[in-house]
Amino acid sequence: MGRALELAARGPSRGANPRVGCVLLAPDGRVLGEGHHRGAGTAHAEVDALADAARAGTAAEELRGATAVVTLEPCSHTGRTPPCTAALLAAGVARVVVGAADPNPVAAGGTDVLRAAGVDVVTGVLAGRSSSLNRTWEHAVRHGRPFVTLKWASTLDGRVAAADGSSRWLTGTGARADVHARRATADAVLVGTGTALVDDPWLTTRSTGADGTVHLAADQPLRVVLGERDLPADARLRDDAAPTLQLRTRDVTAALADLARREVRHVWVEGGPTVAAAFLHAGAVDELVTYLAPAVLGAGAPAVGDLGITSVAGTLRFRLTDVTRLGGDVVLTSTPEKEPV
Amino acid sequence: MGRALELAARGPSRGANPRVGCVLLAPDGRVLGEGHHRGAGTAHAEVDALADAARAGTAAEELRGATAVVTLEPCSHTGRTPPCTAALLAAGVARVVVGAADPNPVAAGGTDVLRAAGVDVVTGVLAGRSSSLNRTWEHAVRHGRPFVTLKWASTLDGRVAAADGSSRWLTGTGARADVHARRATADAVLVGTGTALVDDPWLTTRSTGADGTVHLAADQPLRVVLGERDLPADARLRDDAAPTLQLRTRDVTAALADLARREVRHVWVEGGPTVAAAFLHAGAVDELVTYLAPAVLGAGAPAVGDLGITSVAGTLRFRLTDVTRLGGDVVLTSTPEKEPV
Repeated sequence: MGRALELAARGPSRGANPRVGCVLLAPDGRVLGEGHHRGAGTAHAEVDALADAARAGTAAEELRGATAVVTLEPCSHTGRTPPCTAALLAAGVARVVVGAADPNPVAAGGTDVLRAAGVDVVTGVLAGRSSSLNRTWEHAVRHGRPFVTLKWASTLDGRVAAADGSSRWLTGTGARADVHARRATADAVLVGTGTALVDDPWLTTRSTGADGTVHLAADQPLRVVLGERDLPADARLRDDAAPTLQLRTRDVTAALADLARREVRHVWVEGGPTVAAAFLHAGAVDELVTYLAPAVLGAGAPAVGDLGITSVAGTLRFRLTDVTRLGGDVVLTSTPEKEPV
Repeated sequence: MGRALELAARGPSRGANPRVGCVLLAPDGRVLGEGHHRGAGTAHAEVDALADAARAGTAAEELRGATAVVTLEPCSHTGRTPPCTAALLAAGVARVVVGAADPNPVAAGGTDVLRAAGVDVVTGVLAGRSSSLNRTWEHAVRHGRPFVTLKWASTLDGRVAAADGSSRWLTGTGARADVHARRATADAVLVGTGTALVDDPWLTTRSTGADGTVHLAADQPLRVVLGERDLPADARLRDDAAPTLQLRTRDVTAALADLARREVRHVWVEGGPTVAAAFLHAGAVDELVTYLAPAVLGAGAPAVGDLGITSVAGTLRFRLTDVTRLGGDVVLTSTPEKEPV
C-alpha cells in the first residue's frame, strides 16, 4: 500500500478526480504491474496497472489469483471510463486490498460488487494517507460542493487595502510567491466583481524569475468572478492566459453548486471583503489562509465585511492548524470549529 | 563578566534603575566580593560588592590593586545614593572592567572620572548582554521618555471587540496569562478613558489558580488612564489593588514626559483603538505585541483607529521579531522599521 500511495501521489493535485495508485501482486509477492490515475478522462489506476502488467507480458492465468492493492475503493460506475470493478473482475484477481473508501455516492459500492463476485476484499489499509492525498476532493464529493479556501492578505490591524483602495504591496515577495504556489493547487480562483473592477487582477498562477521575467504556469486554474456587474472589455481577466467564468449571482450556495457541476473540487477565494463575508456567512469556508504583514494602516477596507455578528458570543471560531513565517510576513492557516454546511 | 551579568539578572526587571552586577577580584583571581542592584534607593552594584567584600573580612589593603568587573559603566553623579566612581576610588581599586556604557547623560562619564584618577579602565566587555538586560531602561534614558509597548488582542480580521462592545474573551487563557506576565515586566499599564469606561478593567497583574482563585501579584505596575473624562467612583481602577494615575490629556508626548518624570521606564499600552492610534500617530510605539485569535467578527471596534493614512505608501511598517503560538492563539511581536521619536 505504501508503494501504491507513492504512485497515487504522482497524479495531479487538482482536477475532477482523486489521486489513486494501484499495485498488482502475484501470489508469491512479485509485482505484476503498477499504475496511477493521471486526471479526468485518462485510465483509472486499476486499469492503468492492468495495462502495465499486460505490457510486461503477464499471462492472463497469472493475473487470476493476483492481488490488487489500490489506495481508493475501486469505482462501480461508468463515468468517462468503464467501472474498475468490472476490469478487476474481468482480469480475475482473487483479492483486493483497499485504502480509503470512496466517499462519492455515485461511484461507491465497489467493494460490495467485488465481494458479491467472490473476490476477497480487505478495506481501510492506510486509509488516512489516501484521504490526505485527496483532502479537497474527498471533502467536495462528500459535501456535494467544492472545498473552499478563503485567503486574504492584511496588515496586523486587519486592513486589506488603504483608504484610497491601494493594496500593492502589503505583503512581501515570499508571501506573494506562496499565494501563486497555492493557487496552482486549486481548480478555480475566485474574486468578486468589486475586486475585479478595483484591482484589475490577472489571477493567474505565475512566478517571477531572477531577471524579472514573469513565467505563467502551463496549466492555469479557472478564473471565476462572482457578481452581477460587467467587467470592462480590457479587463486583465478577459485575456487568454486562463479561462474565466463570471457567475452572475451573489448567492454563494448557487455559485458553488454551479462550480460543482463543472467538476471544480477546490475553490481558492481571494475576496475582497464582500465576497469573504458572503462565503463566511454562508458557512461555506473550509479553510482560512491569512497572510499578515507586520504593518498598520488604521483605515481602509477591512478583511471581512459585515457578517451581522453583534456580540462576541457570535464570533466565528476557527482552529489554528499552521503558522509559518514567510520572509518578513506570517501566514496562518485555520479550519472552522463548526463543520461547514 | 559572565558572573557579573548573572548577578545583574537578579535585579528587578522594571523600575527606575537598570539591572547591574559587580564582581571584585584580587590580582590572583580570587573573588573578594559580589553585588547587584536591587532597585531604586538601594545600594548600587559596586557599593553592594564592596560591602560584600567587607563582610567577608577583606582587608582594605587587599582591595587596593583589585579589579572591579561591572556590567554597566559606574555612575559619576549623586542621585538617591552617592556616585559609585567615588566608592571605587575610595576603596582604591586598580582596574575596572565595564560592560555597557551608561546611556544616561546625567550619570555617564564614570569611566572618564576613573581614568583621570589613574584607574586602568576596560570598556565594552559583553556590552550587548548588559544592554539586553536593560533594554527598556536603556531606551528610556536614551530617548528621554518611557519605552512603549502597544498591545492588542484581536480576531484575524482585526476586530478587538464586537459591535456591541463586548470583547471577553476573544483570546484563550494562554494568551491572557501571557498578557499578565508581560504586564508585570512594565512600570505602568495604560488605557484610554474609552476602554476604562466601557470595559471597567482592573489592569492588575494577576494569575488564576487551578481552583479558580485569583492571585494578585505583590508588586503591581502603575495603572494609568489617558484622557479627560471622569471615571465613576466605583470604577475597578479606583480600587486599592494598585496605584492609579489619570493623565487628563490626549497628548501622547506630554503624557510620556509626565511618566518619564515619575521614573516610568516602560509603559505597556493596552488601547483601545483611539489610544493605539494616538501612540502610533505620535511615532511613540517601540514594540507591538499582537495577540490573534483564530476567529472572525466582520464588525466591531478595529484594533487601531484612523491614523490619517490614505494610501499603502503611507503604511506604518514594522519588523516581525517573534511569532509564538499560545494555546489556540498566536502572538506576534514587531518593532518599528523607522526609529521612533
